[in-house]
Amino acid sequence: MEQEYASGLLESAVRELSRLPGVGRKTALRLALHILRRDESEGIALGEAIIDLRRNIRYCKVCHNISETELCPICASAARDRGCVCVVENVRDVMSVENTGQYTGLYHVLGGVISPMDGIGPDQLEINSLVERVRGGEVREVILALAATMEGDTTNFYIYRKLAAFPDIRITQLARGMAVGNEIEYTDEITLGRSLLQRTLFSDTFNS
Amino acid sequence: MEQEYASGLLESAVRELSRLPGVGRKTALRLALHILRRDESEGIALGEAIIDLRRNIRYCKVCHNISETELCPICASAARDRGCVCVVENVRDVMSVENTGQYTGLYHVLGGVISPMDGIGPDQLEINSLVERVRGGEVREVILALAATMEGDTTNFYIYRKLAAFPDIRITQLARGMAVGNEIEYTDEITLGRSLLQRTLFSDTFNS
Repeated sequence: MEQEYASGLLESAVRELSRLPGVGRKTALRLALHILRRDESEGIALGEAIIDLRRNIRYCKVCHNISETELCPICASAARDRGCVCVVENVRDVMSVENTGQYTGLYHVLGGVISPMDGIGPDQLEINSLVERVRGGEVREVILALAATMEGDTTNFYIYRKLAAFPDIRITQLARGMAVGNEIEYTDEITLGRSLLQRTLFSDTFNS
Repeated sequence: MEQEYASGLLESAVRELSRLPGVGRKTALRLALHILRRDESEGIALGEAIIDLRRNIRYCKVCHNISETELCPICASAARDRGCVCVVENVRDVMSVENTGQYTGLYHVLGGVISPMDGIGPDQLEINSLVERVRGGEVREVILALAATMEGDTTNFYIYRKLAAFPDIRITQLARGMAVGNEIEYTDEITLGRSLLQRTLFSDTFNS
């Protein structure tokens, strides 16, 4: 049932807010009434931040991460290892890897993974631009950091085949195994089996 | 841990979005990236709807419902019964009562209920303005339509006492009883007991 709103402005705000993922009309109304209850400056700051974001963010022409400039700060940084490229699915994954504090190379954001079920093939992803980047000659290692799912594995394999044309490039993937904090009895069999086969020297844990 | 964002614009949008109720930093980031993925016009429409809402909505000087004009459309309407005032807690409750299609009178939005636990006393609510409205002489009936909670009951009683000064005014409250669709065995004892005591003539159901 269409709700009767006291005002067209409220109606518009609810309509726009309810386009956000996970926000239905009831939640949108709650958000709109919250904005009305708070300071005027707060509501205007929210609206302006959204407009600024949408108007001024673009994508880095090299790694396709979001950026305010043609080249993102990571690609532009002299402190990063230009020989190493970490291939990730999306912008959020770049943040996740950055937050580990363990990575000093560059990124390549695919914009998704190959998923025939969702109609996403290699051509919709930034795979050709990755191949071109590797062809450029500066890259020594490509780290495949995609999800440990069937789609992620398919995409990994597709990229691996594409990069077979460059035999000098080292192609690695994230280690698969038990997550920190996991118990043996609750670890699934495939992960546990793989962790057994790919066991590492115990002494490496405290030598590294 | 503070996340490292690729851009100050994204950082601001996430900060502002996470001020919304029920939106943490993770959800705010998801919303911001969603806005980036969609058309530019859609993001800008959202931002502008929020700014318009906050800048241009005010409160009706008579009933305190939200309005774009000094007098809200309900108070200004010649079709509404000016002798009947329905007292509700907030703007959303006005919409709920309007959506029943059963009410043709006016409203009075209190802005909350008396709740000593939350530090809300009668003076923070629009109770004095209700008394003044009744003193004006046009009102014949005041319908107390507050929540069936301790705070709602307290507020009902407080208003009832205040309006005792006007013996000609009829003061009513919403019927309490079983909700439509409820089963006897799952109805709480207090509601069920009250429904027994305040039972109505069966013939009234099809005569009205």
